[in-house]
Amino acid sequence: MILPTAEIVCLGNELLIGVTINTNGAFIGEKLTKLGYEVRRTTCIRDDLELASAFFKEVFTRKPNVIIVSGGLGPTYDDIQLEVLGKALEVPLIENEQAVQQLETYYGRRSLELTKERRKMAFFPKEATILPNQVGGAPSCYIQYDGMDIFSVPGVPTEMEDILLNQILPILRKKVENSLFELKFQLFNCIESEIAPCINDVKTHFPDLYIKSHPAYKDKVGIIIHISGYGETAENNLYKAKEEMTKLFKIKVPSLIIKDFKD
Amino acid sequence: MILPTAEIVCLGNELLIGVTINTNGAFIGEKLTKLGYEVRRTTCIRDDLELASAFFKEVFTRKPNVIIVSGGLGPTYDDIQLEVLGKALEVPLIENEQAVQQLETYYGRRSLELTKERRKMAFFPKEATILPNQVGGAPSCYIQYDGMDIFSVPGVPTEMEDILLNQILPILRKKVENSLFELKFQLFNCIESEIAPCINDVKTHFPDLYIKSHPAYKDKVGIIIHISGYGETAENNLYKAKEEMTKLFKIKVPSLIIKDFKD
Repeated sequence: MILPTAEIVCLGNELLIGVTINTNGAFIGEKLTKLGYEVRRTTCIRDDLELASAFFKEVFTRKPNVIIVSGGLGPTYDDIQLEVLGKALEVPLIENEQAVQQLETYYGRRSLELTKERRKMAFFPKEATILPNQVGGAPSCYIQYDGMDIFSVPGVPTEMEDILLNQILPILRKKVENSLFELKFQLFNCIESEIAPCINDVKTHFPDLYIKSHPAYKDKVGIIIHISGYGETAENNLYKAKEEMTKLFKIKVPSLIIKDFKD
Repeated sequence: MILPTAEIVCLGNELLIGVTINTNGAFIGEKLTKLGYEVRRTTCIRDDLELASAFFKEVFTRKPNVIIVSGGLGPTYDDIQLEVLGKALEVPLIENEQAVQQLETYYGRRSLELTKERRKMAFFPKEATILPNQVGGAPSCYIQYDGMDIFSVPGVPTEMEDILLNQILPILRKKVENSLFELKFQLFNCIESEIAPCINDVKTHFPDLYIKSHPAYKDKVGIIIHISGYGETAENNLYKAKEEMTKLFKIKVPSLIIKDFKD
């Protein structure tokens, strides 16, 4: 099955120098995956106009169906996401009336002035559709370019999550055909390499399923098996694959204990 | 100051679909930054031989001084890091005697057989220098290619950390000239956009310093100011910049409280 593709781009030196762990990438990746996108790359790039705009030009040549860009929408000097997008798209930024109004409302409620630094957050590429930020100050946007849907979101996780869940996903939901189906279960009393041959066997019988084992980090014991796939066939095959796999596991490791797993 | 550059590549569908948050990227990024590298990109890519090897060919054209590749060294069918590197470097993988010995020791101690799946972990590009894994099963490696230092590490954080700290950083430490100096402090009773103009001002007086404000996520109050730079001049200027900045902050927000910050 050929899925629509997505790339996630997280802008911010803090991600590259290890001050901030990129939780946004995982959050956005999970939501896009469940919606039916194949997330091809998640890239963290620096707050550097030349490097970052050159990077976006590269992304555009790969033509993913969706690009989500997180971070760099705020008031500080290194918040340059829109400047970067403007340069990569080769369009000027203009003051967007809707964005100005949102900023006026946001800062007005807090009795704060709309300074030059804050007003910077209202400059968008001309073709951009503003996505209001219900949680923080910086407006976000949606740009359609050369067959790609580009969504710009703030780096602050609560703001990104709100805009992604309430504004971006509803737009994308109308565009995808096949959703993800998945199941997970947990194994105890075995090590990953013991059961690897069983997974390889089952994998050949279900080429459309993605089957992955990985150590259970959260409670630090056991192995998690994660089976997933897209569309109705995948939905039907998940449990068949699990059944086949657990039979083989038990032959290989008679003392094995199997439990359901929920995140 | 021109710093040597680095790219971090994290291989694994689990990172793209949001099952795993990429903590490795931040850990490696912090260590390389402190050593004196400019980390240009951190990219998560899929366990897909064609996509991933094409990606590495791209990285090679950018010629970063260092490439750290994490994940995909294990025994399962989708652990394909070495195959990917072999394809991108256009060299065959051969069974490495030192890697076989390490695997024999590792599994021997656990009274486990060296199966075909486990033996796969001993196949490396011919020119690779093996880096022993003291924590887990999968050996790692170091490859010098076209002026770049490529290091391969497992995705399991404890294994990656041990190899990075004890084997890779000592090799790189001999190659860099300027270390990072930094200081952080925390502000209370203000919001980020109020102090943004002060940072912009001070930034123009210290062009070699990187000055960044960001919300303090850990305890969810206050703003953290992070000042950093490379070499002796930066070391001398950090405190001057802090002094100048705090003066401006206090004029702007008289009720401001400033505290030192330690991670």
